[in-house]
Amino acid sequence: MSLGMIPNRPFRPPAVTARDKLLEAAVKLIRTSGYAATSVDQLCAEAGVTKGAFFHHFTSKEALGVAAADYWSASTSAFFASAPFHDLPDPVDRALGYLDLRIALIGGPPEAFSCVAGTLVQEAFRSSAAIRVAAEASIMGNANALEADLDAAIVQCGVSGTTGASLARHVQAVIQGAFVVAKTQPEECAASLAREQLAHLRRYFAMLFGRENQEE
Amino acid sequence: MSLGMIPNRPFRPPAVTARDKLLEAAVKLIRTSGYAATSVDQLCAEAGVTKGAFFHHFTSKEALGVAAADYWSASTSAFFASAPFHDLPDPVDRALGYLDLRIALIGGPPEAFSCVAGTLVQEAFRSSAAIRVAAEASIMGNANALEADLDAAIVQCGVSGTTGASLARHVQAVIQGAFVVAKTQPEECAASLAREQLAHLRRYFAMLFGRENQEE
Repeated sequence: MSLGMIPNRPFRPPAVTARDKLLEAAVKLIRTSGYAATSVDQLCAEAGVTKGAFFHHFTSKEALGVAAADYWSASTSAFFASAPFHDLPDPVDRALGYLDLRIALIGGPPEAFSCVAGTLVQEAFRSSAAIRVAAEASIMGNANALEADLDAAIVQCGVSGTTGASLARHVQAVIQGAFVVAKTQPEECAASLAREQLAHLRRYFAMLFGRENQEE
Repeated sequence: MSLGMIPNRPFRPPAVTARDKLLEAAVKLIRTSGYAATSVDQLCAEAGVTKGAFFHHFTSKEALGVAAADYWSASTSAFFASAPFHDLPDPVDRALGYLDLRIALIGGPPEAFSCVAGTLVQEAFRSSAAIRVAAEASIMGNANALEADLDAAIVQCGVSGTTGASLARHVQAVIQGAFVVAKTQPEECAASLAREQLAHLRRYFAMLFGRENQEE
């Protein structure tokens, strides 16, 4: 698996259809400027499509926001589902392997590694129930994908007082928080601050599961 | 110290001046709707002041955003500086006491406990250098206030491989991430999901510092 290094679009093939071009424009502009600050005109200009094409595919900017969260979920979950750490025989290695992959994916300016769903929900959780629910599906979908490995690691290591579901939610929370604090930094310091947060999470998990904390 | 329970304004006296009313309106509306989605007209209506008053005090919405982050910093840092955990003789107890206080402050809907600075920077890190820097000062100012206790705890417990500054940044990152994931939830589930994240952070610190993890 190659991580690919196309800024803002590491997991997805080039967009061909007008709909996909608008979704890619949404990913780029939401990551850079946020959702509310991005206009339909800007989305059309970035995608190179007409406003007629926009409203052919989406009834509103909100509908594009929901579709962008779904598009983001589908592409990121497919990427993580195909990652080689799933082949490791030990569930603790798989859990730490996921964190190592997330650390490896962080680089460049915040708009190259930040989360479309997290940015959408930070802004629009109260104004758009549809966006909130789409962001919940995206972020909690990523959490659900970790749950079985974390449950197996908990059983194997005899960890008490938590669950795979709870640890999986914490992984997603630390990732979201890493992106927020990264955005407070000058561009050249953003990625290292985000990686530092995932490294602390890795150390927490290594301690919970009785491992030496040695990043791959 | 009473935490106070005025929604959106637990740490601050009622606003009297037009400037403070606008800052309180900014805190409330940014927490609820985000920065870009909040208009000058809405800020004036919420504050009960004229547009003339707005532009007497602030040259632009961006200037109010910067001032809101500074106002937020000043009020939250004064609140945390006066908290009783500072009187505990042991630095580990002080570090855990801060986390217990943060957990106790989370309740109600996300707009009652979320962070003005984190919301501002999530949206505007690229479009406004002034807002990014103000959010950095707010969030990293909160981190700096924890650093001495965490350094003392590290020395006392012989923890290697990290620093008080790094752990203090992680505290702020987990708090920010807790607020993002909380916003993905239906209102009645938001606070408990945020508290769960701080509870994991507390367990990490308890393990690092060789303590039983028992929340106060």
